[in-house]
Formats: sequence, C-alpha cells, structure tokens
Amino acid sequence: MRAAVMRGSKLVVDDIESPKPGQGEVLVKTLACGICGSDLHALKHAHKMVELSEDAGGNFGMDLSRDVIMGHEFCAEILDYGPGTTGALKPGTRVCSVPITVRNGSVASVGYSNEVPGGYAEQMVLFEPLLLEVPGDLPTELAALTEPMAVGFHAVQMARMQKGEVPLVIGCGPVGLAVIQALKANGFGPVIAADFSPARRALAERLGADVVVNPATTSPYESWSEVAANDESGNPMPPNPLSGTATFRNGVYFECVGVPGVINTMMRGAARGCRLVVVGVCMEEDHILPLSGINKELNVQFVLGYTPEEFAETLRNIADQKFDVAPMVTGTTDIDGVPQAFVDLGNPEQHAKILVRPAD
Amino acid sequence: MRAAVMRGSKLVVDDIESPKPGQGEVLVKTLACGICGSDLHALKHAHKMVELSEDAGGNFGMDLSRDVIMGHEFCAEILDYGPGTTGALKPGTRVCSVPITVRNGSVASVGYSNEVPGGYAEQMVLFEPLLLEVPGDLPTELAALTEPMAVGFHAVQMARMQKGEVPLVIGCGPVGLAVIQALKANGFGPVIAADFSPARRALAERLGADVVVNPATTSPYESWSEVAANDESGNPMPPNPLSGTATFRNGVYFECVGVPGVINTMMRGAARGCRLVVVGVCMEEDHILPLSGINKELNVQFVLGYTPEEFAETLRNIADQKFDVAPMVTGTTDIDGVPQAFVDLGNPEQHAKILVRPAD
Repeated sequence: MRAAVMRGSKLVVDDIESPKPGQGEVLVKTLACGICGSDLHALKHAHKMVELSEDAGGNFGMDLSRDVIMGHEFCAEILDYGPGTTGALKPGTRVCSVPITVRNGSVASVGYSNEVPGGYAEQMVLFEPLLLEVPGDLPTELAALTEPMAVGFHAVQMARMQKGEVPLVIGCGPVGLAVIQALKANGFGPVIAADFSPARRALAERLGADVVVNPATTSPYESWSEVAANDESGNPMPPNPLSGTATFRNGVYFECVGVPGVINTMMRGAARGCRLVVVGVCMEEDHILPLSGINKELNVQFVLGYTPEEFAETLRNIADQKFDVAPMVTGTTDIDGVPQAFVDLGNPEQHAKILVRPAD
Repeated sequence: MRAAVMRGSKLVVDDIESPKPGQGEVLVKTLACGICGSDLHALKHAHKMVELSEDAGGNFGMDLSRDVIMGHEFCAEILDYGPGTTGALKPGTRVCSVPITVRNGSVASVGYSNEVPGGYAEQMVLFEPLLLEVPGDLPTELAALTEPMAVGFHAVQMARMQKGEVPLVIGCGPVGLAVIQALKANGFGPVIAADFSPARRALAERLGADVVVNPATTSPYESWSEVAANDESGNPMPPNPLSGTATFRNGVYFECVGVPGVINTMMRGAARGCRLVVVGVCMEEDHILPLSGINKELNVQFVLGYTPEEFAETLRNIADQKFDVAPMVTGTTDIDGVPQAFVDLGNPEQHAKILVRPAD
C-alpha cells in the first residue's frame, strides 16, 4: 500500500506491505486523516521525544531505526475482520476510533509505533471494541476532526469549569480552536483568545471567541482582566474588603501553544486563584517561577488525550453540529503530497488543519 | 525596646523605638515567636526575594536599606489600644493573630515590612479585628505554633483530600510536620513521609506519619506505590482493564522543601493522576519537564498561608490537642540569642522550631 513513512527523521512516500489485523482487530481503509502538530514535532525531534517520553512515563516506545507511519486523527471504512472479532459493523461502514489498539494485553499507539501504521497510509488496523460508527449523513472530513476536537473537549472537562468563570485561551491552533468550541458549546464565556497570527485570530472569532487579541500589541491578561472585573450582569466586582484592591471573576487559562516559556508567562500574567490547564504538549525542559504560583495560589492541571466516552461524545457533538469543525479544514492532500503538507503547515497564515485523503 | 533587627543583610540586636498603635491597632508585648525557615532565607537572599516577589505578584515590599524586624509566628499579650479600637479584650489578655495589619486601606505584613515590626522584638502592633484570644489553659509556647500549623492545615484544605487517597509528604521540617498532623487529624492516611534527616524522620513518626523513609536509600515514590497498590481493605487494586498495567489509589503529594528541583523530581516520581500540593516556598527560578505532567495528567496546586477562619480553627485544634505541637519546639532563646538561633537552625539534627521569648 501507499504510505508516507517517517524513516530516519525524513518523511518519504513509499509502497509498503499492508497491515494484517491481529486478535480483536479490524482492517480498514483510511478515508481521511488530519495532520497533527505533534507529528510535525515528531518528525523534527523524534529522538528527543522518545527519550523524554520514556523519562516522563509516556508511551512513545518507537524504534526510530525502523519505519513509523504516523497519523492518528482519522475516519476509515471497514474492509475486513481479524480473528476474535464480532463483526458487528458491516464492511463498508465508516468508523472513527481512539487511536490505540491492544496487542497481547499491551496498548499500542496507532500512528506512534513501529507495529501499527497510522492514517498516512491507505490501510490501518484498529481495535474492534473501540470502533464508533460515523452517523450516515456526517461528511467523512468532519468525522476525521473527532480526535483533535476530543482533545479540546477533554481539556474543558478537566478544567472543572463553573458557571461565571472567565476562560482565556492562549494559542489558536487546532487545539486552541477545539478548546474555544468546547467552551462555547458548554455555555462558558465570554471567551478571551490570543494568537500572533491574523488568520488564526480570524478563525478563533468565527468559531465563537468573544474577545480576540494579538499578544504582540495587547496583553491577553489585561484583556482578560477587563472582562473579569465585571460580574455576569456587567456590574463591577466588589473590591477586597480588607485591602480594597480589585477582585476578579475566577479565571481558567488554557495553554494551547506547547513551547517552553508559555506556562511561566501565563503564571506571571495570571490573576490570583486562577487555574491553568496545560493542553499544549511542550516536549522540552521548561522553566517556571514557583513564587508566581505560590503568591497567587495558582492551580496547574496538565491534560492529555481524552477518555473513550469523551471521544464518542465529541463525534456526536460534531454530528449534531454543536461543534462547527468545517472552518478548521484549510486543505487536503493525497499521500504523495504529505511531505509538502508538513512544510505548508509551518505557516499559520496558510493553514490550520490539512487532511490526508489516501483515495484521492 | 530590644529587638533582633535585619540590617544590611545582617541580624543585629539593638535597642530601638517601640511601635505606636495606629488606627484600629493594639500594642502588644511579644510572649513567644517562632523562627520560620522563610526568615532564614530572607536574611540570606533578601534582595532577590524582594525582587522576585514583586515580579511574582507578592507582597514583600521592603526597603532593605532600612531596618526590618522579622517574626510572624507569635503569641502576645495586650498592653494598650490605639485610636478607633473597641477594647473588647482586656489588657493582659493573650492573643494570636494572622500576621498582617491594615493601614490606610493597605495590607502590611507583620514581620516583613519596614513599618510593622515582627515578633523578634519586645513589642508589636496588631490589627484588632484579627485578634484571637488564647484559651486560658493553653501554654503560650504552643499557641505560638498556630501560624506554622495553619500553613499545614490550609495546604490540606486546598488539597481537596478524598477518603481513600494516599498522601505523601516530601520534607519533614516544620511545614511538613504541620501537614502530617493536619492529615492525621482529619483521618487521612496512611501517610508516607520522607526526609534526609534522622531527627526529622523521628519527629515525623512521632507526629503520626505511618511510613517514614530516608530518600537517600529508599525511593519515597516506591514506598508510596507499595501502600497505594492496595485498597483500603488491603486487597490489591485491580489492574487497568485495557492495558493490564498496575493501578494505584489516588495520590496527593505535598512538597514541603521549597528548593529548586523538588517539584520536578516529584512530577517524575508521581503516579498517573496525582495531585501535587506545593507548600514549600521556593524563591528561585526552577525547571520542570512539562511532559511528565502531561503524560500522567498531574495537577499542581500552589498554596500560601491560610484564611483567618483556618487560622482560628488551627488555634482551636491546638487547644483541643488535636494537633500535638509540643514535640516540634526544640529550643528557646531570648532576643540576644536570635542571631545564634538562626545559625543553629541550619542543622536539622539539632532543631525543628526555636521560639524567641523576649521576656526571658
């Protein structure tokens, strides 16, 4: 089968052997697969990522001297069944899945392992118990957005948002946009959002952010303070009874950038008692000033992925048009175009999400 | 009055002018005042502390070219009343107080300001609305432990502990010992505690820690895992249904050291889903590996101080012998001995808490 292969830190297109479904697995045809920022990072920094991940209790156990086929944001079609399956869904059924399979009692990542190819290939094997049928009238391209949208949905769940709290989203790439939509779909806001890119800011606004700022010219923390200085009825918050200083509604800040220094900047910019939710995946060592956290009693919640239930609910939310994911798709490509798409995604003015469509 | 004064990064004993109670303030005689680790740090790193604190939204606005009289863990006796007071408590009454006063609508720290002397002096001024009467039969020395014990009490409140969660306390100085007692008094445990010092470990055990380890020879995280691998009835926790890997009871880890690197070590040692409560006050820049937090979805809660209500409840808990604070007091000194006491506290084998008794 045709596949875009990570081979020796390069992305090359090649014809390779199709995967065989093992115990409990299903062979599928890849219909669409989004390119994730983590894949761009992996291509550049795979060795460091594997090393750090081992150190940090993660699960990127790849042998980088062997081929890896990435791609974990997919919609696929059932072709065939392996041993020990029920065959509940007919061949031809479109499915989404959490990108993992279970082999010999061990979890393997679809898209980040040597054994289990991801969606930058014509075929994949998936784990039958995790398959979700895509509703009949939902376009394949939108179903493929389930995975990144589930990341935002999970982050908002983990944020334990309460009515009246004011969210701030730093970074409006796909992860930030998913967080914005999950916030708005759940009735939280006003949402303040920040990104250096005009195109990303325009997307953030289109997808529901109420106040969108360019951090190069406007402090996101000051913009947040202006909103949070008033209660839900628009009346000024009462000053601290002891010190007379200003008070604010509770803040929940989402880190959706994932590069060193951002957590520290957010901690320094945060108002007293804020909760930070770290959704961006920083794969390097970082520095913080604990005293910022201490003086303001900040809470930092690191999050990763989603539960199978959250993943399923995200697919339903897309099907029910509670999440408006179409504007996030800024391009498509066939497998031969994957290496160029990786390059193009480096420019946020040009792209948010590119979908790989192997059948094109 | 006699006072131990921080003057040009040195601690000198001198006779200085007594403070005058301002609006709403009460003049008191210092009966006992504990020496806090933060004071030791302040003496060594005052300039850095002031600079970082400003940067981190804190309240150490001291002018270090002028005198500062530290000491914020005190029990005192009412001498006289300033203007605008009610005089509800008679002169001679013993009191404790949150170490702040309010002047012209601004909060000032008792013990960390140029204007408001702390307890390393014969007299102080306190803010009348914050005074708590010490119960008649409670020894003064024990009442003076209210402040550090309130720090531990608050940390446990902020940890949102649930029944069945397994706490781990890293560092058994006064803060760690306060956390251990607050955990045990609230019925949480077993408590695992770690410290390099044999004397501190002995104190931790005496004050209720169930498993006490020397991190030089035994990993606190492995000790924690051994306990948390079993449920409350002592039966092994069920393995993860998907991956078959081990699962643990929820962990809540308390950082009670406050030096760079400890947060990172705890994040790397933590089990999946743990909550870290940062009680130690690290006053330097620190480094973390965000990926440790992300892969394990850790939560980091920074905490500081206590509420007036928690402070009052802590004093009641000491009076009711729910907290056994006597073993923490390892020495007393008069004001002339304060500089030497600062030196002696550098040795954890010798001391946990030294009380200054100005009248001695």
